[in-house]
Amino acid sequence: MEKISGNINSTCVEFKDFKNYDGQVIPVRGYIHRIREMTGFSFVILRTARDVIQCVYAPEFSDYRWDAKLCEEACVEIHGKVVSSKDAKGNDRYELQIHDIIILSLPAEPLPIVINKKQLDNIQLSTILDLRPVSMRNPRERAIFKLQEGIQRGFRDFLTKQGFTEIHSPKINYAGAEGGTNVFKLDYFGKQVYLAQSPQLYKQAMVGVFQRVFEIAPVFRAEHHDTSRHLNEYISMDFEMGFIDSFEDIMNMETGALKYIMELLKTEYSEEVTLLKADIPVINEIPAIKFMDAKKIIMDKFKYKPSDMKDFDPEEEQLLGKHAKKEFDSDFIFVTHYPSKKRPFYTMDDPADPEYTLSFDLLFRGLEITSGGQRIHDYNEQVAKMEKCGMNPEEFATYLMLHKYGAPPHGGLGLGLERLTMHLLGFKNVREATMFPRDINRVTP
Amino acid sequence: MEKISGNINSTCVEFKDFKNYDGQVIPVRGYIHRIREMTGFSFVILRTARDVIQCVYAPEFSDYRWDAKLCEEACVEIHGKVVSSKDAKGNDRYELQIHDIIILSLPAEPLPIVINKKQLDNIQLSTILDLRPVSMRNPRERAIFKLQEGIQRGFRDFLTKQGFTEIHSPKINYAGAEGGTNVFKLDYFGKQVYLAQSPQLYKQAMVGVFQRVFEIAPVFRAEHHDTSRHLNEYISMDFEMGFIDSFEDIMNMETGALKYIMELLKTEYSEEVTLLKADIPVINEIPAIKFMDAKKIIMDKFKYKPSDMKDFDPEEEQLLGKHAKKEFDSDFIFVTHYPSKKRPFYTMDDPADPEYTLSFDLLFRGLEITSGGQRIHDYNEQVAKMEKCGMNPEEFATYLMLHKYGAPPHGGLGLGLERLTMHLLGFKNVREATMFPRDINRVTP
Repeated sequence: MEKISGNINSTCVEFKDFKNYDGQVIPVRGYIHRIREMTGFSFVILRTARDVIQCVYAPEFSDYRWDAKLCEEACVEIHGKVVSSKDAKGNDRYELQIHDIIILSLPAEPLPIVINKKQLDNIQLSTILDLRPVSMRNPRERAIFKLQEGIQRGFRDFLTKQGFTEIHSPKINYAGAEGGTNVFKLDYFGKQVYLAQSPQLYKQAMVGVFQRVFEIAPVFRAEHHDTSRHLNEYISMDFEMGFIDSFEDIMNMETGALKYIMELLKTEYSEEVTLLKADIPVINEIPAIKFMDAKKIIMDKFKYKPSDMKDFDPEEEQLLGKHAKKEFDSDFIFVTHYPSKKRPFYTMDDPADPEYTLSFDLLFRGLEITSGGQRIHDYNEQVAKMEKCGMNPEEFATYLMLHKYGAPPHGGLGLGLERLTMHLLGFKNVREATMFPRDINRVTP
Repeated sequence: MEKISGNINSTCVEFKDFKNYDGQVIPVRGYIHRIREMTGFSFVILRTARDVIQCVYAPEFSDYRWDAKLCEEACVEIHGKVVSSKDAKGNDRYELQIHDIIILSLPAEPLPIVINKKQLDNIQLSTILDLRPVSMRNPRERAIFKLQEGIQRGFRDFLTKQGFTEIHSPKINYAGAEGGTNVFKLDYFGKQVYLAQSPQLYKQAMVGVFQRVFEIAPVFRAEHHDTSRHLNEYISMDFEMGFIDSFEDIMNMETGALKYIMELLKTEYSEEVTLLKADIPVINEIPAIKFMDAKKIIMDKFKYKPSDMKDFDPEEEQLLGKHAKKEFDSDFIFVTHYPSKKRPFYTMDDPADPEYTLSFDLLFRGLEITSGGQRIHDYNEQVAKMEKCGMNPEEFATYLMLHKYGAPPHGGLGLGLERLTMHLLGFKNVREATMFPRDINRVTP
C-alpha cells in the first residue's frame, strides 16, 4: 500500500531559472533538437517545454562516452554544468556543459521534414497541417500556439477580475440558434439536432442568472466556401454583460480586455513575441465611428465606390484601418450603428434611428475581429422583431424565457481566437494560427 | 467621433464591499428577488450577480414614492444607505435603507415557478431542467454552477502554475479516437466524421510539443442508456504530461490539483460552499491500492462476491470508499494496475506483470471520478498492441506520428467536471450539476 502525497517531482530546472544555478550541475529533460559536430566538440541543442537550450559536449569536461544511438528527436535527460557567457549584445547567455546524457526513448524513424531550423522553410501550408504533430515541434510553429494560449488566458483573467462567471453552454443544440444555412446537422437518436454556431442564446439566458458571463469554447459553421479567413470549427471567446448603461459599456469592456491581453503577452509571453517578431499593438483609446460616417470617409476621402451600402467589403475595411492609423495612430477602430437589416434578430435598434442598430464591429489593422452590440431585452419588442424577421417566436420559447420573465439591458460580443492570433502575427491565412483546422476540404488530422 | 478608453463604469458596489461604505448612500443593481410587505415598511430583497441583499423601504427614511409597477424579477437600480446590524451569531450584517428605486426593465409575466425560497421545493428535476433560464435564478441552483466554475478554475490555475500549456483540440474528428459504438456520427460535406469522445489522441501528440498540456472542453458520447451518472455531452478536464518517471507522477499531479481546487473553493467560493452545505474534503495523502488487492479486500473483509473479476460494479466502489474512510480517513482512494483487457489500446502494460496495466482510477466517496495512466510511447510496442486489439495501425497513422518520430514516457488523465461537482455536493443525479444536460431523451433547452 502506498500513499500519494501530491508532492510534484520537479527534478528538472527550467531555462529561465538557469541564472540561479550558475556553475552547478543540473538535470534537464527534453528532445534532442539538433546535433552539430564540430572539431573536438559537439553542440547538442535540447528542446524543452518552452525553450531551446545549447548544450556542449567535449571530452575535456565530461567522462561521458558518446552513445551512437543518440539522434535528433531522442528524448533524454542531460546532466550538465550551467555556464554563462555574453552574447553579441552583452546579455547573459547560459549553456550547459554536458556531464551525462541518459536516453529516455528513441524515435523509430527520422522526421519527414526538417523542424530544427529557425522556421519551416519551403514547406507548403498543407504539408505543415498534415504533419501538425511533428511540424509543431518547430519552435516557431510552437510559439504561435503558446501565444494563442496567452490571448485566451488574458481574456479569461481580465473578465474574471471584472466579476464575470465562466460558463459552458451545450454544443449539441435543438435548433439553429442564429438560423442560416451554414449549420451542421446531426442525427441524435432519430431527432435532427445542430452543432452550436454560437453560445448566443445561452449566454443571454445566463445574464439573468450571473449578470456577467463569458465562455471560451468551440463553435461550428458549415462554411461551403474555402477562404483564407474562415474555419468550420473555431474557438469563440464570448462575453455577455447585464445592467449596462449603453452599448459603449461593451466596447469599453472589450478595450479593457484587449489592453490586458497585450500587456500579458508583452510580460509573460515575451520569448514567443520575440521569436515570432509579433508586433504587439499599443492601445490607448480606440476611435469609434458610425457606419454611415465610415462610408462617407471611404467615398469622399479614399474615392472608393462601395458595392454594398449595408456592409463593408474587405477593401473598405482596409481603408478604414488606414484611416484609423493615420488620423488616430490606432491599430484598432470601432465601427458602430450598423444597418438593422444586416444584424441578427436580437440586436437592439437605435431608438434615435431604427434603420440602424446599437451594434459595432471592431477592426484590427483593417480586419474585422469582433461583432457585438446591445440586445433587445423587452419581451414584446423581441417578439415583434422576430415576427418582422419572418421567425416563429414559438420555436424560440426557451430563448424568450429570458425576456418574458425579466431581462436587464444587456449586450455582448464574440471574438474569434484564431482570427485574432492570425492578425496579431500578420498571417495571410487563418489556418496558420489554427492547430487542427477544419474546412470544406480538410477534416484531418 | 468618440473615443473608447477602456475605462469600465463600475458605479455599483458589490455586497462584499459594503463594509467600506457603512453609513453612505450607494447604488446597487440587480433583480428584485422578493418583496415582503410588513406593517409600516417593506423588505425588498435584491438579487445581484452573486448575492442576495436585504433592502428596507420605509417612508421615514425615504422621499421615494413606491411605484406600483415594481414586482419580482424587475431589474432595478436601488440607491440606499448601508447600515450594519448584528445577526444572531454576532456577525456584522449589512442591509440597505432604500432612498430611491429606478426601474430598468420589467418582466412581461410572473415566473412559472417559485424561485425566491431557499431552494426549489417540490419541483421535479425535469421541470427544473426545462426551465433552466429561470430555475437557475434561484440562489442555490445558481451557486451549484458558480462552484463548478471554481472547480475548473482551480484545475486550470494549478496546471498553469505547473508549466502546462492549455490547448484546444478539434471536436470534429475524422475517426472515433477510442473506437466503440457510442460515437455521434456527422455528415461533413458527404464524408462521415465523428464528434470527439475525448481529446486523447491530440493531447498525446501535444506532449511531443509542449511536454505538458491540458484542455477543458466538451466531449460527446452517444450513450443509449439513461442513467443518473451518464451524460451525452459533458465537460472533460484532461491533462497529459511527458518526461514522467512513473505513473505515480500523474497521480501526484492529480492529488496536487485536487488539493488546490478544494483550497480555492474554501477561500474564493466560501459563500457558495456555505449555501450549498458542501462538504469539502480534506486531502492530505491519498491511499493507493492495487486492483487485485482491492478485490481481495472486497471479498475477504466485506464478504462481497464480485460479478466480474476484471472491473468493479458500483457496489464494490462503495465498499472501497468505506475502506478508504475507515482505514485511512480519506475521502479518496486510487485503485491502480487495472487488468489490461479492460483498458484502452494506448495504456502501458506493467512490465512486471503484463496482465495488468500502469493505470489507475480515482474513487471519491466510493464513486469513480477519474481514469488515467501511463501511455505506451514506443512505436513498435504501440503498433503491436493495436494489432493485438484487432485495430489497423494504418488507420491511426497521424496518431502514431508521435511514437514514430519520438515520444517521451508520458501519461495523463481525464476528469468529468459535472460528475466531480455532483459527488462534491452529494447529488444523486449528474443532471443536477449540469447546466443544460443532454441524454438519450433530452436535447432541450
